Amino acid sequence: MAVFHMNECIRKTKQHIPLTADEIAALVRGITKEPLIPDYQLSAWLMAVCLNGLTDAETAALTMSMRDSGQTMHWEMLDGPVADKHSTGGVGDKTTLILAPIAAACGVYMPKMSGRGLGHTGGTIDKLESIPGFSTALDPAAFLKQVQEIGFAVAMQTGDLAPADKKLYALRDVTETVDSIPLICASIMSKKLATGADHILLDVKVGSGAFMKNDADASELARLMLAAAKADGRDCTAVLTDMDRPLGMCIGNALEVREAIEVLRGDTDNDLGALCLTLAAELLQMAGRGDAAACRRMAEQAVSSGAALERLRRMIEAQGGDPRVTEDLSRLPQPLCSRTVKAPQSGWISAMYSEQIGRASVLLGAGRMTKSDPIDPAAGIVLSVKPGDAVQQGDPLMTLYAAKESQLDEAESKLGGAVVLAETQPAPQPLIHETYRTGATA
Amino acid sequence: MAVFHMNECIRKTKQHIPLTADEIAALVRGITKEPLIPDYQLSAWLMAVCLNGLTDAETAALTMSMRDSGQTMHWEMLDGPVADKHSTGGVGDKTTLILAPIAAACGVYMPKMSGRGLGHTGGTIDKLESIPGFSTALDPAAFLKQVQEIGFAVAMQTGDLAPADKKLYALRDVTETVDSIPLICASIMSKKLATGADHILLDVKVGSGAFMKNDADASELARLMLAAAKADGRDCTAVLTDMDRPLGMCIGNALEVREAIEVLRGDTDNDLGALCLTLAAELLQMAGRGDAAACRRMAEQAVSSGAALERLRRMIEAQGGDPRVTEDLSRLPQPLCSRTVKAPQSGWISAMYSEQIGRASVLLGAGRMTKSDPIDPAAGIVLSVKPGDAVQQGDPLMTLYAAKESQLDEAESKLGGAVVLAETQPAPQPLIHETYRTGATA
Repeated sequence: MAVFHMNECIRKTKQHIPLTADEIAALVRGITKEPLIPDYQLSAWLMAVCLNGLTDAETAALTMSMRDSGQTMHWEMLDGPVADKHSTGGVGDKTTLILAPIAAACGVYMPKMSGRGLGHTGGTIDKLESIPGFSTALDPAAFLKQVQEIGFAVAMQTGDLAPADKKLYALRDVTETVDSIPLICASIMSKKLATGADHILLDVKVGSGAFMKNDADASELARLMLAAAKADGRDCTAVLTDMDRPLGMCIGNALEVREAIEVLRGDTDNDLGALCLTLAAELLQMAGRGDAAACRRMAEQAVSSGAALERLRRMIEAQGGDPRVTEDLSRLPQPLCSRTVKAPQSGWISAMYSEQIGRASVLLGAGRMTKSDPIDPAAGIVLSVKPGDAVQQGDPLMTLYAAKESQLDEAESKLGGAVVLAETQPAPQPLIHETYRTGATA
Repeated sequence: MAVFHMNECIRKTKQHIPLTADEIAALVRGITKEPLIPDYQLSAWLMAVCLNGLTDAETAALTMSMRDSGQTMHWEMLDGPVADKHSTGGVGDKTTLILAPIAAACGVYMPKMSGRGLGHTGGTIDKLESIPGFSTALDPAAFLKQVQEIGFAVAMQTGDLAPADKKLYALRDVTETVDSIPLICASIMSKKLATGADHILLDVKVGSGAFMKNDADASELARLMLAAAKADGRDCTAVLTDMDRPLGMCIGNALEVREAIEVLRGDTDNDLGALCLTLAAELLQMAGRGDAAACRRMAEQAVSSGAALERLRRMIEAQGGDPRVTEDLSRLPQPLCSRTVKAPQSGWISAMYSEQIGRASVLLGAGRMTKSDPIDPAAGIVLSVKPGDAVQQGDPLMTLYAAKESQLDEAESKLGGAVVLAETQPAPQPLIHETYRTGATA
């Protein structure tokens, strides 16, 4: 192989000349293996990628090389379809806590590696850890055994999975090079492909509270992720879902676990329940459990029969948590103080800025701005209304929960304008914007 | 002052939002002073500048901040006009060796700080050091005394002058961010302004052998440099001169000293002599020595009278060199071997690729590819013809000089196609493309 020159790669990307797959493989090797490429060269290249983009072929090659930078997982020992699900991050997004138990109840394995939340969006690991005793540090043998017996497990993603992504992400974070769609694709898909599932369901959040602010960007990201999955022989579906408003009524870790349990208890007649049933049906269909209508019925029955909730109970128990939370929500951490935010005037709720609401929940203690910040599992926000609802002056808009009054003050002061009132009823906004499917490729 | 966030600067430049002068000052401070900005953030910003550009105001602010990053020189103790000259770098460019003695002979002081050559272009320091005994390491007192007595001195540029540029340039060199016109302007002008001359003559080389490949880029660079000079209250003229061919007949250090001495002896009826007299007239006019015609005559007389050559002789003597080289060219280092490259067919010389010829001279030992490479002062190339000349098959095109036959082989093999022969006489190409002047601003 030719000698690798990082200068040459930077120059090419700067001049819109595509890199070869060999060049990208050598570049990714130099992120984690000696001789290491200096950070200053990587960051110059990252900025060139941000401003000039990458071709589809380069994006796929980058994804594959990053997948191969560490451990790749395999699931031949499982006797049924293996699926994975990823959300690009939203406010109030607890779909994994609902979707995985439904899939498990319907015979689809979900060995999930997940991460902590950062900034205004939450993380599944933080949500599960709000359950007393729950642990996400599973050794590989225990993880596999749990997946075989219960159908799913959620473990903290380790540094062995796509380590090049971990290092590159840290550099992107401090060089304003996070918001490149090809780089986002490679970051997400390298980890999904390394995790080894045959069927990958992507929930691409779009709107004011998401990283993708508009349908065009979200569609482009979905297109690139599907292309990378297809290039790796995986079956992949991307659903573009609305994040112009928070998902469901609860934002905050224990609050979201509570809401997930409520949906699994049968309370599905709301945006969260509707989205989870739709995503579950997609996942079951990808996994070959039947046609769209049959999979939809199967998902609904998993909830109505209590089978999905039972899977969640067993999973919590297996991972050291208190399984009684599924019956008794008061066993979840409870906040020390609360405050109701009221409507300043009468009208229709026309918009709710989810990023602003997410940031307020961080101030309440529900999230972290830096990786080392502690989290208050009980803190958060419960919405009383959603866009399209009518309110009278003085009606509650939401309730804030925290450990200290000062946090309530701070969060409330940041919520000004987060809920927009209009004189006329707004047009309803669809929850699902678009669905893209590779179709079966394996 | 507000807390400085480098992330914010990167984001703004990435999004085409101009930085304020305060932000640029803080950024430049962080290049050399604690708390240092990490290289990976600087290089991301440099790439954003390369691809998105800077506004004129940002370029001027960057230039001023870099000027102020170290020592600034002042020349109030000199009793006449003080001028400086800078060339953006070319092949065979020995104009400083001719211009400075003419200026000195005409009562214009030139305290020159200069650098070594790198890549295919030479440096004045290397050329002067080919004179036996010559030293460019002058202490400030000796430098000033020499300027006062002889009118000019050439010293190695120290790290105290615009140290932010030195560090930024090293980073640009390894991150493919050298070729940004605003960054080139700031790099050149920060040092020129720190050197303290009132009158600055810029020789902007344009063509295949120069950093600026076309008139549009060269004009843009000239415009930005003049704006920076004007913002600092300096008088500045930029002359766009041709570098589609080498300047003069000689490329190589001692060879170029020889050619400069020949011009100062009166051999001005050639492209090098013509350019030097034009530049000298510009410089004298800037320095208030008379109108264009008077300054032209003054420059010509400085050569024809031998006054300029006498200044060079005294300057060489003052800096420890053997002054007898001005009378006896054989005292310059002589090469061990040579080879004549002949015309493969008859025709008109229609082009000479100066960059290719410059690179061949490096292979002969006349230049360096990395900063630590040694230089052979005697090595180089003497052209026998220039574009527009007619040759017969077998006529000499050029003679190569080196210390070893193997260097001649290597250089010759790289010269294929460097001299283009045509069947018809090419249209003459002007030596001076354009002249831009701030006019007196002080």
